[in-house]
Amino acid sequence: MRELEALIRLLAKLPGLGPRSARRLALTLIKKPDSLLTPLVMALERVANQIVTCSTCGNIDTSNPCLLCANQGRDHQLLCVVEEIGDLWALERSASFDGVYHVLGGHLSALDGVGPEQLNLAALGERVSRSQTSAKPIKEVILATNLTVEGQATAHYLKELLSDLAPDLKITRLAHGVPVGGELDYLDDGTLRAALKSRR
Amino acid sequence: MRELEALIRLLAKLPGLGPRSARRLALTLIKKPDSLLTPLVMALERVANQIVTCSTCGNIDTSNPCLLCANQGRDHQLLCVVEEIGDLWALERSASFDGVYHVLGGHLSALDGVGPEQLNLAALGERVSRSQTSAKPIKEVILATNLTVEGQATAHYLKELLSDLAPDLKITRLAHGVPVGGELDYLDDGTLRAALKSRR
Repeated sequence: MRELEALIRLLAKLPGLGPRSARRLALTLIKKPDSLLTPLVMALERVANQIVTCSTCGNIDTSNPCLLCANQGRDHQLLCVVEEIGDLWALERSASFDGVYHVLGGHLSALDGVGPEQLNLAALGERVSRSQTSAKPIKEVILATNLTVEGQATAHYLKELLSDLAPDLKITRLAHGVPVGGELDYLDDGTLRAALKSRR
Repeated sequence: MRELEALIRLLAKLPGLGPRSARRLALTLIKKPDSLLTPLVMALERVANQIVTCSTCGNIDTSNPCLLCANQGRDHQLLCVVEEIGDLWALERSASFDGVYHVLGGHLSALDGVGPEQLNLAALGERVSRSQTSAKPIKEVILATNLTVEGQATAHYLKELLSDLAPDLKITRLAHGVPVGGELDYLDDGTLRAALKSRR
């Protein structure tokens, strides 16, 4: 049963799972080889082989640039900066934003040793400053980092950085209405929509 | 992102996971392709290819008969009947049983349309009656079904079935009682009543 134990140990590493739920998961998968296990292996393989990170925004997709960046129907002069891909998905689910995104890949945190170099920041600065000399410059950047201490600090840092790079840039934050300490990924769509609408 | 959505939909079908936790899981897997995603695919494939059901007891293993059934150091005259493979694992973890097992694959339930034919029962009957004429007959069967209504009904059915097949067979049940470390105040009345009744 070494194979099974290896699987259970791997599953137990996943977020939200422990040894007990990993065992339960493994058993369920084995009991339904045709309807669950094989399709799951195939889906995981497809994702592993086909998903790439968009070099423009840091989102993941099967193409680079991703579908959001490549979509000319979206407003490329409106840029929304988020911490994680999950935050991007949450905003997309709320269907209340038609600009483009930039995924930082985390937030600044002295405690965890995450400085500006560890985040997808250089690309953001370059993207904003290059756009200023183009035909369709980025007009507004929405700093949609989480309203946690680290998220706020990251937003503050970004505000300084971006207003230095492009003095005419409008820099906004999501409106209060997002509960303090709350994370975007766990919010309902209505709150997200309201927070986007009354951004300041 | 069709591939990703397909993966998330599959993950959300697993026990204990919903759409939100499935999304979180998928993102975690994609973020760590080398340390999580690829090893998980490999572990799942190995399990899918190598795990077989033991035709003697219904356990799963990489060999048939399974390691437990093939182990001549165990007491093959002591048979423990459980509902699910997870129950077998729980008993093995307790390291308090050195007989062999029989996995039913569920319990009788008129509500869910599970009759004797849907369970691994015919094999159990055959196994017990065949052993009676062998050199080492099964002497005792422990009915370790759950202490739920369905589990009790299944045990009752098994008792009738087995005592017809082998009148000399000793048929036992797990003791009811207070769990070790359990506090009386937090126990349900049924357990308390049972624990009082079979006090020793």
